[in-house]
Parts: sequence; structure tokens; C-alpha cells
Amino acid sequence: MAYFDAASAAPLHPVARQALLASLDEGWADPARLYREGRRARLLLDAAREAMAECVGCRPDELVFTPSGTRAVHSGVAGALAGRRRVGSHLIVSAVEHSSVLHAAEAHEAGGGEVTQVGVDRAGAVDPAAYAAALREDTALACLQSANHEVGTEQPVSRVAEACRAAGVPLLVDAAQSLGWGRVEGDWSLLTGSAHKWGGPSGVGLLAVRKGVRFAPQGPGDERESGRAPGFENLPAIVAAAASLRAVRAEATAEAARLRELTERIRSRVPELVPDVEVVGDPSRRLPGIVTFSCLYVDGETLLHELDRAGFSVSSGSSCTSSTLTPSHVLRAMGVLSEGNVRVSLPPGTAEEDVERFLEVLPGTVAAVREKLGAPAATETVRAAGPDLVVDALGRRCPIPVIELAKVIGDVPVGGTVRVLSDDEAARLDIPAWCEMRGQEYVGEEPAERGTAYLVRRTS
Amino acid sequence: MAYFDAASAAPLHPVARQALLASLDEGWADPARLYREGRRARLLLDAAREAMAECVGCRPDELVFTPSGTRAVHSGVAGALAGRRRVGSHLIVSAVEHSSVLHAAEAHEAGGGEVTQVGVDRAGAVDPAAYAAALREDTALACLQSANHEVGTEQPVSRVAEACRAAGVPLLVDAAQSLGWGRVEGDWSLLTGSAHKWGGPSGVGLLAVRKGVRFAPQGPGDERESGRAPGFENLPAIVAAAASLRAVRAEATAEAARLRELTERIRSRVPELVPDVEVVGDPSRRLPGIVTFSCLYVDGETLLHELDRAGFSVSSGSSCTSSTLTPSHVLRAMGVLSEGNVRVSLPPGTAEEDVERFLEVLPGTVAAVREKLGAPAATETVRAAGPDLVVDALGRRCPIPVIELAKVIGDVPVGGTVRVLSDDEAARLDIPAWCEMRGQEYVGEEPAERGTAYLVRRTS
Repeated sequence: MAYFDAASAAPLHPVARQALLASLDEGWADPARLYREGRRARLLLDAAREAMAECVGCRPDELVFTPSGTRAVHSGVAGALAGRRRVGSHLIVSAVEHSSVLHAAEAHEAGGGEVTQVGVDRAGAVDPAAYAAALREDTALACLQSANHEVGTEQPVSRVAEACRAAGVPLLVDAAQSLGWGRVEGDWSLLTGSAHKWGGPSGVGLLAVRKGVRFAPQGPGDERESGRAPGFENLPAIVAAAASLRAVRAEATAEAARLRELTERIRSRVPELVPDVEVVGDPSRRLPGIVTFSCLYVDGETLLHELDRAGFSVSSGSSCTSSTLTPSHVLRAMGVLSEGNVRVSLPPGTAEEDVERFLEVLPGTVAAVREKLGAPAATETVRAAGPDLVVDALGRRCPIPVIELAKVIGDVPVGGTVRVLSDDEAARLDIPAWCEMRGQEYVGEEPAERGTAYLVRRTS
Repeated sequence: MAYFDAASAAPLHPVARQALLASLDEGWADPARLYREGRRARLLLDAAREAMAECVGCRPDELVFTPSGTRAVHSGVAGALAGRRRVGSHLIVSAVEHSSVLHAAEAHEAGGGEVTQVGVDRAGAVDPAAYAAALREDTALACLQSANHEVGTEQPVSRVAEACRAAGVPLLVDAAQSLGWGRVEGDWSLLTGSAHKWGGPSGVGLLAVRKGVRFAPQGPGDERESGRAPGFENLPAIVAAAASLRAVRAEATAEAARLRELTERIRSRVPELVPDVEVVGDPSRRLPGIVTFSCLYVDGETLLHELDRAGFSVSSGSSCTSSTLTPSHVLRAMGVLSEGNVRVSLPPGTAEEDVERFLEVLPGTVAAVREKLGAPAATETVRAAGPDLVVDALGRRCPIPVIELAKVIGDVPVGGTVRVLSDDEAARLDIPAWCEMRGQEYVGEEPAERGTAYLVRRTS
């Protein structure tokens, strides 16, 4: 059994467990009360806030605890936008933010605000110059993650923060994926995090708002957490969150080096072991524990299921696992293959032998899934046929359209075209990605009577 | 050491502790994931939802978990109002709701909505007919607590629910104080609760929305908890919340009878033991564990401090403990004395001897506080003086204005008046309450050069 989905949630750190247990008896009372149980709870809360602020790199009175990272983002975005309402209602986000940021942006748009999404390169990073160019007179807030949750790519936060500072625009950094590894560099204005991502308990997020940043909490409030996070504090969990962040940080440098070596093995060896694989995300500017790759001709949900049966818990940004049947917005923004997508995110402490076993198991598992789906062999035989072909993949879900395309490309002569009809949203991403991987020419798409026609020209 | 503030937060129930520990290892993963750790978490979440729904008296798919009771109220009120936006924007609340409901109402008003507060009688209960009379064509939502958190009075929920049902208006019941004791009777539409009130962990609230109730969640959302509570589920705590509610309910009937007897002792004996005390709240239609009384000539904060030193943790709705320096909105709505207010709320398992010890300690503690403040003796000597007197208590906080009034009332003849000048908001409540307790005539108030003048006529 190996759990390789730390980017979703990390198993509880032993220190978190100890701190939680210890504070169950001391920290259940209302910290707003004046009697001894309340004062004890208040002491715990204050100490946790100090420890957390030290880890984040802010003042204790700049930091509040929220019920989750998602709620921290929602409150942070709404409060910062409202605080600068007079400046304007323009919001900037990167195209690869966590869904909590994108949902906050959608809510802002629904309320009449304007949102600019800054694109990313094929590695998943924003270009600081492009981000800076999106800043406007009426920009109320800019958001940028510290590192991407699906592919591990680190964002150029310092440089974007400089640009924002120069423009007088506050920058909110979603640091959920990186906070366990270290402070966020750069002159951010607001920062959010989530304890269960670093091995803390669920139920605890954090929102830091630098002094001087205009902030107007939205929705009904109360007197708790500086009026920024209403409701009774989740105290024993807050204590555990702070204690575990401190513990995780103490081990971070050594563990980062170790995990980086393990993910490097996966990055380099998966393409050797498995044909038709694309490793995605920045090879060097990345989180230590995350590596993501996509496998042609594979249905992500089936692959995850088979890996689970083999004892590996991994995640996928593949369209086929999402209830919405659209490919991951991150992979789409990067313009990389989404089909058969696998995210391996190693929790601290992952054993080397588990990674080796994963590398042993993966090739056979992918091959079995491909065989079941009738995927083409890695090397197709070239057959001459008519100059043009139409593949009707309407009603077939990914990866079938790409599989059918791969099967017939050898049937048209070099220079001939294959026209793939598909109504699966993932085809829009995966057919161009397949062309790039296979050195074929992607001509473009056009609306068809049903779905969309994707035109591919055989060039080799 | 005796903790008598269960209405704020109950100590963790042993079953909650066990369930929390057990699920720390099984329930840390993301229940939305398909691998085994995710499936295990999902099973725990589903089981907790079923157990909780059974205790609440609703279908599992009608119930979602929120980060706190406060957040459940905020989301419930906002979602129900938005769901019936076409009907109108009129909201009804009772004047003695928990602050979370009143804050939600304030936010609704700030957004252009209209709010009617239904008053209560001297015992703290709404009149069902008065509540029904507040229902209008454009009423989108009505809110009523199951029982009051400060004085323990039960509200006539069934009858108000009938009136709402007849008018086609959904009723949201804040059941935070009563859910540990049993299901809420009556045909409610939405219901909220908070686990740490029944001995569950902090970080868990619940929101039930009956099928057929129009509900449009507000703010950014995600796919968790039916789109009604975004953010990673606080799973081990949710499991503990459900397990402890079930456990508490199993003991509820016997424990309610036991606590009712103990609070009855306090209700009946405090006025015998301490002069100038008013016990507030309904003597029979009330929660088993709560009893509240106010002591003339006492500063609530000092009294709480002295009781804490004597080993008793109690709470107060007295103006003097509030950071806003206004008396509790509950006591104000009831029109009862707020000064020297003490709420005793016994957690299940409270030992009889702790209550007896409290009754031993209280008289001396109150007497000491009164002596320190220079309060008049219980029986004043009657002295004849001029027909009218002015007491200047400007700049003096409660209970000084009442103490000064009591000191001089004997100096005017029967029929003469005392004019008390005060700029403490609590005087508006406490001077009339003192008159009622002492059989003197409260003539009324009028603006003074500074503060307000309260006119009292000596009648005996």
C-alpha cells in the first residue's frame, strides 16, 4: 500500500496527532470567555497563532484561522476586493489557480466584477511580464498560487509581487501546496493556506492579511478572528495545525532533497518504461514531491482504478475522472495532453522502495488498460489508402477519439488528412497534444453537424 | 472546579473523543477520491451523515456538515432568502435569536432586505399569534430558535411552524441549544445545529434543508456537501460529532430529569439565599440545564471573576462583560434586569455536590461584590428630604447608576421623584427593572444635556 496523493491531503503528522490529543482536554472551551477554561483555550489559540505566523512570515495579528484553505481563499478574495471597491472591480488570476480561487473569481464576475485570467506556458508557469501587463488602473486584486497543485510548477511569485507592488495592487498568494516546504518569498499582501496539505488536521485554513492592506470582510461576521472568520474556533485542530507546520518545517530541507530525488526518478524513468507518455510541469522549478504525466490511449479513471488495485493511491486531472467531463483546467491552460493523466504526489516519509515498486508496476498496468481499450501498438504499420479519412468518434469518450485517430493515421498517405468527429470536450486538448507528440500536423478544428471536426494532416 | 457554561461549549464527550481518535487514522483522506483511502473516508462521511440525519429527523441527503453552527446559520439564512428572492425579501426573526441569526439578518438588511423582529414576553418566549401576524406576502424566510441560549426558554416552534406552513413561508430553526436533548418538534423547513454544544468537537455545524425548500447557496461554492458548504470536510470531527450526538441522546431523558431538578434548586433557592435577585426565563417551558438570574447592585464582570476564583465557570449576559458595553439583546428584549446577570448552564454529568457548593458560595460572593461597590443594604432606612432629587451618574458604568438611585430613594418623600442622569446604555433597562422589583414607579426617560434622565417616583 502506498499513498501518493499528498497534494490532495497528507496523512496526519505524528506531531499533529499528539498536539490534537493534548489540546482536546485543554482547548474545548470558548476562548472568548473569562473563566479559567476559556483563558486556557485563549492561551492555546494565541500560542498557535504566534507559531503559525512565525512559519508564514507575518505578524500574529495579521493572521486568522479559517475552517479550510478554500474558505480562506473565498474570504480573502472577497474581503480584499471589497476593501478596494473604490479603486475598481478588476481581478487578476492565473489560469491554473486552484478551483477555490477560480470559484471566487466566478462569484466576483457574477456580481458584476471583471476578471482577467493570465495564461501559462507549457510548463504551467505564468510569465511575470504577461502578469504585469494585465495590471490596470482599476485592478483591485491580483491572485497567484505559490506552486501548482496538479503539476507542481512553482510560480514566479517574487517578480509578480514586485510588479503588483509597483502598481499599488495587493497580491493574494494561495500557498496551500508550498507552505509545508517554506515561507513564500516575495512581497505578498495576502496569503492563504490549508493545514491538511502539510499533515495537519482537516478543518483548519489560514488567511494572512498584511497591515495596511485594505480589507473589508464580507457576509455576516462576529467578533472572532478579528471579524474575518466567524464561528467558534476549531481549537484543538488549530493547535495541531500550528504544531505540525513547525515540525514539518524542521524536516523540510532534508525531506525536500530526498523527495526531489524520488520524483526525479519518476520523471526520467516513466518515459523510458512506458511508451507514448508525456511528463508535464516544470522539470526544475517545481515542488519536491509532485510529478505528473499523461499516457496516450488511456482512460484516466480506469488507470487510477488499476493502480489502486495494485496498491497505489494517485490522482488525475484527466477528463475521465471529473464529474463534469471536461479536462483539468490546469492541463488545458498548459496545452498538454490530458488523457491518461496521473499525478503522483509523495507525502514526506515516502519510502524509496514504494517508488521503485510503482515504477515496476506502472508499465504493465498502462499496457493492460491500453489493451482493454484496443489502443494501437506503439509503432503503427504504414498502409497506403485514400488521401483523406473521416473518423466518427461521436458519443465516444476520451481516450477513444485519439485511439481511433492513431489507428487510421497510417491509412492515409503523407500529406493526406484525417478528420476526427468528436463531441468529447477532452478531444480539443488531446488531439493537438497527440499531434505534437507524434510529429503530425494539427490543422485546426471546425464546427460539425454534431460536435466538432478536428483536422490532422499526416506529415511523416 | 465546576464548569457551568455548557451553553457556550460542552466539554468533549468520551464517545466524541473515542470516535475522533479512531477516525484520525481512517478519515484523513479526501472523500471525493476513488482510491481506498478516499473510499474509506467517504464511508465514514456517509455513515456520519446517516447517524446525524436520524438524530435530527431528516433524510441524509437533506443534511450537510458546515464548519460551525454559526456558518450553518449564515449559509442557511442566505441560501433560503436567495432561493425565494422572487417572493420577496422580507425576513422574520425573533428578538432573542443567537447573534449568528441576528448578524445574518443585519447582512440581509445591509443588502437592501427588510427584517421584522418579533418581540418576546418577560419569560423570553415569542407569542405564536404575534409571530404569525408578522408573516407577509413577501416574507421569504422566518427564523426561530428552538430554545434560548441565555435564559433557556423554549420557543413555541410547532405552532409557529404551523403558521409559517399555512402562509407558505419556510421556517429555519436554530436548534443549537436543544439538539442534544431531542429532535425539534414541528414542521420546520431548515434546521441548524452545532456539535460543540452537545459535547461534540468544535469545527462541526449542521444544516438541514427539507426537500422541496427552495435553496440557492450564496458565495463561491464547490462540489462538496451538495454545493452548500465549500471546503475540505472536517472528517474526523464530523464522525465524532455524529457519534457523540447519538450517545448524548441515549442518555438524554434520564439526564434531562436530573439536570432539571438541579436547576430547579438554583431557581428556587437563589432568591432565598441572595437578596435583590431576579430569576429570569420561563420556569417550566425551558431547557433542563440552564438557569439565569440577575443581581441588583452587582457588576457582572466582577461577579464572574469572583465566582471563577471560587472555582465556578459561569457566563453572563450582563452589559459589563460585553465589549460593546450594551446589555444582552436577549435580556433587553425580555425587559428584565441585566445587571449582575449570571447564566448557569450545567453540562450533562454535573455533580449534585457542585451545585450545592455553588449555592453555598454564591451569597457571600454577591455580598462581597456589593460591599466593594458600596451598594445599599437590602432594607433602606426611610429619611424625609426635599420632594425631588437629582442623581448625577454620568460617566459611571452599571451597576453604579442603580446603586446611587437605591441609596437616595429613601431621601425623598412618597410621591417625590428621583431623576437619574446616566450615559450608560444599561441604565435604560436596569432602572425600570429595579423599579419593578422594588415596587417604585418608573415614570420614563428624557434626553438630558448629557446622556439620559430617568425619572423614578417613590410610591412606597
